[in-house]
Amino acid sequence: MNPNIETFIGCDSGFDEAHIVLFGAPFDSTTSFRPGARFGPAAMRHESFGLETYSPYQDKDLTDCHIFDSGDLELCFGSAEAALADIQARAEEILSAGKLPLLLGGEHLVTLGSVRAVFARYPDLHIIHFDAHADLRDDYLGARLSHACVLRRCHDLLGDGRIHQFCIRSGDREEFRFAKAHTDLHPFGFEGLAELTEALARVGAPVYFTIDLDCLDPAVFPGTGTPEAGGVTFPQLLEAMRLVCRANVVGADVNELAPMLDHSGVSTAAACKVLRELLLTLSK
Amino acid sequence: MNPNIETFIGCDSGFDEAHIVLFGAPFDSTTSFRPGARFGPAAMRHESFGLETYSPYQDKDLTDCHIFDSGDLELCFGSAEAALADIQARAEEILSAGKLPLLLGGEHLVTLGSVRAVFARYPDLHIIHFDAHADLRDDYLGARLSHACVLRRCHDLLGDGRIHQFCIRSGDREEFRFAKAHTDLHPFGFEGLAELTEALARVGAPVYFTIDLDCLDPAVFPGTGTPEAGGVTFPQLLEAMRLVCRANVVGADVNELAPMLDHSGVSTAAACKVLRELLLTLSK
Amino acid sequence: MNPNIETFIGCDSGFDEAHIVLFGAPFDSTTSFRPGARFGPAAMRHESFGLETYSPYQDKDLTDCHIFDSGDLELCFGSAEAALADIQARAEEILSAGKLPLLLGGEHLVTLGSVRAVFARYPDLHIIHFDAHADLRDDYLGARLSHACVLRRCHDLLGDGRIHQFCIRSGDREEFRFAKAHTDLHPFGFEGLAELTEALARVGAPVYFTIDLDCLDPAVFPGTGTPEAGGVTFPQLLEAMRLVCRANVVGADVNELAPMLDHSGVSTAAACKVLRELLLTLSK
Amino acid sequence: MNPNIETFIGCDSGFDEAHIVLFGAPFDSTTSFRPGARFGPAAMRHESFGLETYSPYQDKDLTDCHIFDSGDLELCFGSAEAALADIQARAEEILSAGKLPLLLGGEHLVTLGSVRAVFARYPDLHIIHFDAHADLRDDYLGARLSHACVLRRCHDLLGDGRIHQFCIRSGDREEFRFAKAHTDLHPFGFEGLAELTEALARVGAPVYFTIDLDCLDPAVFPGTGTPEAGGVTFPQLLEAMRLVCRANVVGADVNELAPMLDHSGVSTAAACKVLRELLLTLSK
Amino acid sequence: MNPNIETFIGCDSGFDEAHIVLFGAPFDSTTSFRPGARFGPAAMRHESFGLETYSPYQDKDLTDCHIFDSGDLELCFGSAEAALADIQARAEEILSAGKLPLLLGGEHLVTLGSVRAVFARYPDLHIIHFDAHADLRDDYLGARLSHACVLRRCHDLLGDGRIHQFCIRSGDREEFRFAKAHTDLHPFGFEGLAELTEALARVGAPVYFTIDLDCLDPAVFPGTGTPEAGGVTFPQLLEAMRLVCRANVVGADVNELAPMLDHSGVSTAAACKVLRELLLTLSK
Amino acid sequence: MNPNIETFIGCDSGFDEAHIVLFGAPFDSTTSFRPGARFGPAAMRHESFGLETYSPYQDKDLTDCHIFDSGDLELCFGSAEAALADIQARAEEILSAGKLPLLLGGEHLVTLGSVRAVFARYPDLHIIHFDAHADLRDDYLGARLSHACVLRRCHDLLGDGRIHQFCIRSGDREEFRFAKAHTDLHPFGFEGLAELTEALARVGAPVYFTIDLDCLDPAVFPGTGTPEAGGVTFPQLLEAMRLVCRANVVGADVNELAPMLDHSGVSTAAACKVLRELLLTLSK
Repeated sequence: MNPNIETFIGCDSGFDEAHIVLFGAPFDSTTSFRPGARFGPAAMRHESFGLETYSPYQDKDLTDCHIFDSGDLELCFGSAEAALADIQARAEEILSAGKLPLLLGGEHLVTLGSVRAVFARYPDLHIIHFDAHADLRDDYLGARLSHACVLRRCHDLLGDGRIHQFCIRSGDREEFRFAKAHTDLHPFGFEGLAELTEALARVGAPVYFTIDLDCLDPAVFPGTGTPEAGGVTFPQLLEAMRLVCRANVVGADVNELAPMLDHSGVSTAAACKVLRELLLTLSK
Repeated sequence: MNPNIETFIGCDSGFDEAHIVLFGAPFDSTTSFRPGARFGPAAMRHESFGLETYSPYQDKDLTDCHIFDSGDLELCFGSAEAALADIQARAEEILSAGKLPLLLGGEHLVTLGSVRAVFARYPDLHIIHFDAHADLRDDYLGARLSHACVLRRCHDLLGDGRIHQFCIRSGDREEFRFAKAHTDLHPFGFEGLAELTEALARVGAPVYFTIDLDCLDPAVFPGTGTPEAGGVTFPQLLEAMRLVCRANVVGADVNELAPMLDHSGVSTAAACKVLRELLLTLSK
Repeated sequence: MNPNIETFIGCDSGFDEAHIVLFGAPFDSTTSFRPGARFGPAAMRHESFGLETYSPYQDKDLTDCHIFDSGDLELCFGSAEAALADIQARAEEILSAGKLPLLLGGEHLVTLGSVRAVFARYPDLHIIHFDAHADLRDDYLGARLSHACVLRRCHDLLGDGRIHQFCIRSGDREEFRFAKAHTDLHPFGFEGLAELTEALARVGAPVYFTIDLDCLDPAVFPGTGTPEAGGVTFPQLLEAMRLVCRANVVGADVNELAPMLDHSGVSTAAACKVLRELLLTLSK
Repeated sequence: MNPNIETFIGCDSGFDEAHIVLFGAPFDSTTSFRPGARFGPAAMRHESFGLETYSPYQDKDLTDCHIFDSGDLELCFGSAEAALADIQARAEEILSAGKLPLLLGGEHLVTLGSVRAVFARYPDLHIIHFDAHADLRDDYLGARLSHACVLRRCHDLLGDGRIHQFCIRSGDREEFRFAKAHTDLHPFGFEGLAELTEALARVGAPVYFTIDLDCLDPAVFPGTGTPEAGGVTFPQLLEAMRLVCRANVVGADVNELAPMLDHSGVSTAAACKVLRELLLTLSK
Repeated sequence: MNPNIETFIGCDSGFDEAHIVLFGAPFDSTTSFRPGARFGPAAMRHESFGLETYSPYQDKDLTDCHIFDSGDLELCFGSAEAALADIQARAEEILSAGKLPLLLGGEHLVTLGSVRAVFARYPDLHIIHFDAHADLRDDYLGARLSHACVLRRCHDLLGDGRIHQFCIRSGDREEFRFAKAHTDLHPFGFEGLAELTEALARVGAPVYFTIDLDCLDPAVFPGTGTPEAGGVTFPQLLEAMRLVCRANVVGADVNELAPMLDHSGVSTAAACKVLRELLLTLSK
Repeated sequence: MNPNIETFIGCDSGFDEAHIVLFGAPFDSTTSFRPGARFGPAAMRHESFGLETYSPYQDKDLTDCHIFDSGDLELCFGSAEAALADIQARAEEILSAGKLPLLLGGEHLVTLGSVRAVFARYPDLHIIHFDAHADLRDDYLGARLSHACVLRRCHDLLGDGRIHQFCIRSGDREEFRFAKAHTDLHPFGFEGLAELTEALARVGAPVYFTIDLDCLDPAVFPGTGTPEAGGVTFPQLLEAMRLVCRANVVGADVNELAPMLDHSGVSTAAACKVLRELLLTLSK
């Protein structure tokens, strides 16, 4: 009789043979509106058993890939810096072993931990960012480590022209001004993505790919802290993910599922399907 | 003072003058993920009073049609074979009276009971199947009478080339392989449906029309056991139903509404509207 | 230490300098299907703090506008006539001060109170009406003051050819017949709106603009009493609102949010965003 | 094949042989806080199939009683007076046939329609009233026909000393003053009930018995418009109902279930059980 | 980096050193009213992390006990007999290793699988049964393997006088007649339990202990398929469990948590606490 | 026309004439299990309009008291120390004006801000603490400013014998050991409270009174982050509050309502009633 191992469906390689390593960061302490993203990674794991491992979109199967699911980190609620350090350490451990770290949030701030680790290894890193919100505030009510500031903190590391933002439809006036000067912001949808990824792929630039699931329309994905009407559809997101994965993706995350905000379960189901498609696309 | 008769709105013909007979099959014992479809037919009846009998889409009114609602069968939970026998008997009774049986599920397995009855009368039967899932497994965890196998069991009866599947976006690899060899599967949407229905109409082929409501996108229809992102819109479904009804439809069903999974009630409201439009389209 | 003032976000002008005055009408006594719209205006105010004051759609900010939020009226449940009188009085007070009244419902009947006040001042008034339902019944179960009759009562005042209805996809046969003879009804979407608003703008005709939020698809806006599948998308509504505001809008309302019917909160969030965009568009 | 008759479980006598006649009043237009009681009677009918007809508390079975369920009245939302007239007419029709009317609300105002009919026949009528709220306001925001005034309106008919109130734990100061002078109010629980019912039984006084289910603690019965902590338990209510039924009960009602406020369904289940026990107790 | 092992909190012994072995039976195919108990065991495992391992009631800690959690069986939906065979096999495996099997349901029918295994080893077995429902029907709509018949099937094995039922407050008349003749039924509460357990303990009789959590009042435990008002309190259940565990308990189960019926999560939290206290009491 | 002032019902004194000052601390960043307490104070304010200002328990009315509601602080999510500083400052401002600060949480950690302010003014302060949880951990996953440590941090200030804990039924073994040595912990209920308050009243000792609403049974109060079965009833809590207020209460708080965890609204309604009774009891 074996102990009860629980992974995202089809992600049951051993660590050594894995190409991709999943890890969850159940953290949402800086969420300013509606919390609950801490339960996202566990919900995706639990509910993934309603999903098939096979994708008719790509004619590929998770059981043919090599993915290890290391479960959730145990993070300190109330201390963003401590949580980020733990996330960074885990990402570094995965990168050191030559594998791709795939982080499941949690609120969007968790991305910073992973980006720090990836940037240390790839100083010419680009970030491709799908999100409803610009996340470019310099601080939020005094806090510089906030979900609302995470791409600004990434900009502190990477500098101008390295952050490519898509689907953005919310932010304060100052964030949009900052974006005009310092990032490559594409409002509302994916216009310009094909050209960008082709250019990045041509030069083999390393890319960190961060997906805030609230880029999806709330109709498709209501279970998130700050739903913003006017988002993209699920097929649009699938297509965009496939474009990004033509580039040299060296780290990635999927975040901001807050399952208890959507009792119908469709948000969790959609998040699981996004993750399956992302894993299959990354498993070249 | 009369007893409290409850029908789907506008379906209050007597049995004798009716052209279409509704009957509910509140059964979901083989549902593998989230149960609750047993409550679908009753919910559609109860909530239909929020609907108008008139359709501006078709400029037709249910009060001009001849439809009898015979309520729900009392089915044995836990025995798929017994439930199917009762469904088949009811469908046969309706067919014997020269009327069209319109079954309300319940999980998708209930279709098999109705198809058995219709097939006995129309050995050259075709099935047009709208669904997110292929439902072509040979067995599911050992059970051959499972919602995940229902179209496979229909194929056992009808044979190759008679089952036409649309909107399919989920299944295991083996099901898609089986479909390639034995059914006429159109993934994701309704491509090819116009040509098909024209061809079937031309030869007057008898058609059984089964609608798993999860063909709709979960944004529109979250209240179902296994929601699959990437489905069709409500206007697309309306248009597709009208195409199908140009053929010689001799039996039909609408299934997989699980009302308690969607507390907002929009899934039940959408199911009611689908049923109204289907009834009006069938009432030529 | 100040008392706790609660307004819709960014609407904190004083009354005197305001150009637009918000007021809520928490009334739903005549709702025939699912009540709860009474909680709409308070929910929009409470939840608006999850919204930004800045709109990237219009590159404008509520903090630059002059809007006063006067809170909710205290209305008598159970007496439609008394409630309408209070709404009319408040709208007259706002109009007298040379400001634009923007009413938050509540069920759609509340519109009649505001229209009475605006019509008294502008006898050549036109109404532009976005709604899933025609609301043209002469009475509903005997009541002539019912949400299902509100546009019919407006027609009693304004007469033929002055009421322009869009997105309509539900009503009984008689309402559609009435519309054909007496109103300018555009079913399902916004076809014809651009031409209409251009024509009205050219002559400077005064326009009352009433938005029943159930014109939106239930996927986007499930939290409403009578959800009707097949509605418009959020971007379509934004675009349509901008068209209407090219005309001379002299009064407006947003109604039929029933927040407790949508526990995910996305309906309230969408309503807040509609209101922000409407306020920004009206603040020329 | 028979049409779909839906009754409260076990209440399927014909009208003629019935001793008790159920009728529903789906009305809640004057509800001042949270509406939804309109759905109470239908929910009790639909969900009663989760209940047994046999009571181990009384060792009696509904199938041995003679009860007819006449379904719900179709009432005009927005007009309290019209709704009350329809309720009164139905109660009179039942009383004329020598049967006991048992009304299912709806908000508590519906009681007035039934009491008017019963009082016309029994001018020496007493009312026994179980409720969390005194319902003794003379008007509520100007309305004299309001759920908050219903016992005051009954007092207008019956006069002093005829209204016996139990479990009361909410009201404004004026209501408690009025009660001190004019009614027989027992706060919080059932103290004094045994003595009262014995006295009434001794003289054979006719009694109208009205149960606002919010007399129960919200722990047991959360699904109601105005939950008030500190209520009675379910066994206490059972015992109290049995005491009341020793008197000469000539009319009764059960009201204020608002099923959509309690998604767990336990409130509806409790209401069904209260109704079963009441019916069995009244079926002497 | 380790794979993600998920157990009930504090139950992380290896199989060999364990005294108690947990196993889940996620099955609810015969549930006649509201399904969902299939998700009970997984929910208890997931949510147990909101619980402490230490009990101030008993001053004991799960970390001092020796318990192995073997996760959930993969059972065939739709076939009660196949599911029971798998449950029986797992229980036998645990018993063969000299350990106590503790089954987590699922619907109550799962008990039969475990009882068959335990009875094979202990032919003089007694059952102590806490439940709102007698579960003594001979068949339910034709099915003899139904949750409503489970204790009747146990009686087929054990015979008269061996089944001791407590808290029973629902059943049809025939079940109560059967109980009078063949089982030891104590209605409503725990009266007689202390005497019984003392007597059984004195002779060292082997006891199977089955807890249907709906013995608890729905106020405390709303998340169950068939809630029955009038149940016992949580402290009463704790005290009763401690009484039972003075006897020679050789097998046990806890069942009928349907987590999705209670979005507040208190039912799952209560079930976890019941399980912790039961495990601590059994770990002598 | 006035701006929209929103207070807890009946708390509309000006600051100067007030004896008690309410302030909300919408903070829950350190919550370890289920967040959402940040929405507690706003929900209590919004929903208080379903409550009467008059209490039949005390025959007193809030409109006769002098209470100012200063609304919610704007706190920094993600920084416990910054939030505590803001809370402390507000409490000091209220104390300086000679008024009693009554804090509405938020998670229980907010108490520390208030206690720091009160302790600075009353070095001989006692704390009376109602809670399901001991909250005596020295740190929680590394954080010393956590809801799970708040009474331990209070003990750092006040020292041994000054903290009196009631209703405690959860904690780890170490917390109960600490309590035995350093605090006055009464498990499960209110035993000993009458003696304690009498003794404190006799010497006029200043008392800070902190109520974690999860001391209530989850049946009564499910809407809280960490529900613990086996709590006290509402009438028991009322009685206990009245006992405490016989002592010299110089500061107080009510916390841990997480409204979105209980869609039925009964938790918020219960919290409002607790607050009304506390305010009336403190308004001597």
